[in-house]
Amino acid sequence: MNRIAVYPGTFDPVTFGHLDIIKRASLLFDKVYVAVAHSTIKSPMFSVQERKVMLEEAVRGYKNVEVEDFKGLVVDYAVKRSAKAMIRGIRMISDFEYEFQMALTNRKMNTHIETIFMMPNESYSYLSSKLIKEIASMGADVSAFVPALVQKRLKGKYKNE
Amino acid sequence: MNRIAVYPGTFDPVTFGHLDIIKRASLLFDKVYVAVAHSTIKSPMFSVQERKVMLEEAVRGYKNVEVEDFKGLVVDYAVKRSAKAMIRGIRMISDFEYEFQMALTNRKMNTHIETIFMMPNESYSYLSSKLIKEIASMGADVSAFVPALVQKRLKGKYKNE
Amino acid sequence: MNRIAVYPGTFDPVTFGHLDIIKRASLLFDKVYVAVAHSTIKSPMFSVQERKVMLEEAVRGYKNVEVEDFKGLVVDYAVKRSAKAMIRGIRMISDFEYEFQMALTNRKMNTHIETIFMMPNESYSYLSSKLIKEIASMGADVSAFVPALVQKRLKGKYKNE
Amino acid sequence: MNRIAVYPGTFDPVTFGHLDIIKRASLLFDKVYVAVAHSTIKSPMFSVQERKVMLEEAVRGYKNVEVEDFKGLVVDYAVKRSAKAMIRGIRMISDFEYEFQMALTNRKMNTHIETIFMMPNESYSYLSSKLIKEIASMGADVSAFVPALVQKRLKGKYKNE
Amino acid sequence: MNRIAVYPGTFDPVTFGHLDIIKRASLLFDKVYVAVAHSTIKSPMFSVQERKVMLEEAVRGYKNVEVEDFKGLVVDYAVKRSAKAMIRGIRMISDFEYEFQMALTNRKMNTHIETIFMMPNESYSYLSSKLIKEIASMGADVSAFVPALVQKRLKGKYKNE
Amino acid sequence: MNRIAVYPGTFDPVTFGHLDIIKRASLLFDKVYVAVAHSTIKSPMFSVQERKVMLEEAVRGYKNVEVEDFKGLVVDYAVKRSAKAMIRGIRMISDFEYEFQMALTNRKMNTHIETIFMMPNESYSYLSSKLIKEIASMGADVSAFVPALVQKRLKGKYKNE
Repeated sequence: MNRIAVYPGTFDPVTFGHLDIIKRASLLFDKVYVAVAHSTIKSPMFSVQERKVMLEEAVRGYKNVEVEDFKGLVVDYAVKRSAKAMIRGIRMISDFEYEFQMALTNRKMNTHIETIFMMPNESYSYLSSKLIKEIASMGADVSAFVPALVQKRLKGKYKNE
Repeated sequence: MNRIAVYPGTFDPVTFGHLDIIKRASLLFDKVYVAVAHSTIKSPMFSVQERKVMLEEAVRGYKNVEVEDFKGLVVDYAVKRSAKAMIRGIRMISDFEYEFQMALTNRKMNTHIETIFMMPNESYSYLSSKLIKEIASMGADVSAFVPALVQKRLKGKYKNE
Repeated sequence: MNRIAVYPGTFDPVTFGHLDIIKRASLLFDKVYVAVAHSTIKSPMFSVQERKVMLEEAVRGYKNVEVEDFKGLVVDYAVKRSAKAMIRGIRMISDFEYEFQMALTNRKMNTHIETIFMMPNESYSYLSSKLIKEIASMGADVSAFVPALVQKRLKGKYKNE
Repeated sequence: MNRIAVYPGTFDPVTFGHLDIIKRASLLFDKVYVAVAHSTIKSPMFSVQERKVMLEEAVRGYKNVEVEDFKGLVVDYAVKRSAKAMIRGIRMISDFEYEFQMALTNRKMNTHIETIFMMPNESYSYLSSKLIKEIASMGADVSAFVPALVQKRLKGKYKNE
Repeated sequence: MNRIAVYPGTFDPVTFGHLDIIKRASLLFDKVYVAVAHSTIKSPMFSVQERKVMLEEAVRGYKNVEVEDFKGLVVDYAVKRSAKAMIRGIRMISDFEYEFQMALTNRKMNTHIETIFMMPNESYSYLSSKLIKEIASMGADVSAFVPALVQKRLKGKYKNE
Repeated sequence: MNRIAVYPGTFDPVTFGHLDIIKRASLLFDKVYVAVAHSTIKSPMFSVQERKVMLEEAVRGYKNVEVEDFKGLVVDYAVKRSAKAMIRGIRMISDFEYEFQMALTNRKMNTHIETIFMMPNESYSYLSSKLIKEIASMGADVSAFVPALVQKRLKGKYKNE
């Protein structure tokens, strides 16, 4: 039996925390789709295309990981990829509560997709894309938090502003 | 003695979770005012008038429930209606924390209005108007979460966009 | 219609926090039964009789409040008293979570008894019978936390040890 | 590749919440070991043997689920079964926090065993073995919470007391 | 050895809760810098200049307290002031979680600045600048929450709208 | 002005998490008293004398840190040492809630002792003396969690059982 999982998110931009979850998921499943949401509501800093390029560069070493983007309901996307599991990383209590609410709603819409929660390494337990953008905007060095390409792209964003 | 309660909210739009609380409150009090806040800060999707129409349709069966809208402080509105109790539904820890903070602030402004918290049925413990609008905007079927009229109105909103 | 409420607890011993909730409940309901649980699991410091005496002394001023003890399921006791509502005071997040779990279990056993949550004054938001016993056992003055009779009885307990 | 998971716990006694997680896990993994901890610290009501019998009866329908008991560290047991994943059900915020702490400690002791968290159906989100024992001890009907055999055994326990 | 602390924030506007923390900090440190963040992301209601004026008026009585504004990373500002400690007031669980995440990120950027958390008086445990602005916008009396000057300025803001 | 702090606890036994907090506190205060509570309620595994010996060995490198034991109220002990601050390490939300409650009670008993909260390194954010005793009792290697002497003493305890 083929075990396929979907790891959806905005990834605006990808952090070492996301990459830690991807590595762990790639060991548990035959195939992991990292699924970049278009997410017009959150109005991301990077375009879908930019977010995919940064992710692809970062997961190049994993043979069973593929980066894609999706529109619409994530459960519909999961069905299209024949995934049985949807992965969510959790770091904090407040993460957990929101994720719980999302997972129950998703289950109501499609009972065949199971959400499973995984923990990043505790060194990444406080990383958030939002915080990283905030401190990068003040010119801080973020090399401890994101891959080199992401760091470069963040610098580019703030130079242009 | 007449027991009057106020159940304030944005109701943008009303969900089965709200209706579950209304049913429970109608059994505990002689009269329940469902009070729709104008709430210019949250910039609701539906107008006050639309939100009232959807609520009125949904609570038609309850003889001691009345739908109204209000401007200004909710404690002032409660005084006008001679209400001793203000009802708030709680589903989640994070709900509870915000509600607690609001209730203490309201008590400071008027010590005679008591806030009481009630729990919806656990089937509705994850419902939020915000999540429902998100998934409705992607064309999902939301008939498990909201009354028929609300479902129709949500479709209308997203068709016009 | 007569509005009857039950306020169950161990009350080992009663604190100003409990009394604050009793006062608030007595304004919302026609009759409030303060129901002292036998609670053999928690192995209380004071006997049921002692706990009732301290409570009766403390609520003497309220005409519609009565102190009783009960054995068995609290929902069965509530039915015997024709109560529609069961009151629980909540002070903290962790309180809330446990109370939520209890309330859902109680609802499963009797759907006609509604649990409602009320907040004590913020000055009592940190009071717990357990903490008070701990500090009283070290000889501290607890007059800011409990009525005079309770203070006297606590002293008696620790003298005898 | 064979996907093996371990679902450890005290199961004192098994509830519909546990069984819901077992069903979900059996769909995601090739083999699921339900691992009953001897747990001398918690001093369980039922013996390991009794707890295993109740579980075996309840999971009889699942071909890829096996019930075992274990002593010592759960990560050592997982290695013996060649499991890559350890499953934990989570229902509440406070569950989550304790589970998080346990999972980080387990990871420190064996980095190759990944803990994954799954959610029971929301109807079981408030079930706890402890609460069930409490209400069963008062003679309440617990058929909505546990399988028939468990209900019978609980009655037996309280009759003998 | 000189003990210098920084107490950073948006202070939009200062409340009695902030002032309570400042008083406590002034007793623990030789010098406390109250540091007003420019914070273009939050788009404050009052300008940096206005926020400083209200703070300076309110802390006039403390000899070892100074009000300043800062741009960029707060850890860089703390280094410039030779501060070893950064003070954060916490009132609620959700405060705490966000503060924890911030503090860990700040520590990663500068390990020599220690964040310490202090509690305001429980009477101020529910005060938030945001709630105060909301209720002031509805014409409510906020004299129980903020100093007289702040109250006057809030009125001015809402009159001009 | 001399800045004296008290860091009270059971320390049963001391972990790297406690030592991390002691190091941080020693940099902020002129003198830090590590105060071992007799704590007859918790019935510690190690005697007060054993706990002090392990602590003294572990803090030998710090010139301004002293280990003592105390009986009775911690605020009374703090007054005897002329301490203005009481330090508490916090790792988790549930820690925080209990600590908050304790701190408010302590403040009520002595308003001149300020409780301040500090964070251990995130590598120690999940360490608890209780968990360590549990896994040590199963023969696990705990050298990643506690100093060498503590490890040796834990082994001794479990050999004797």
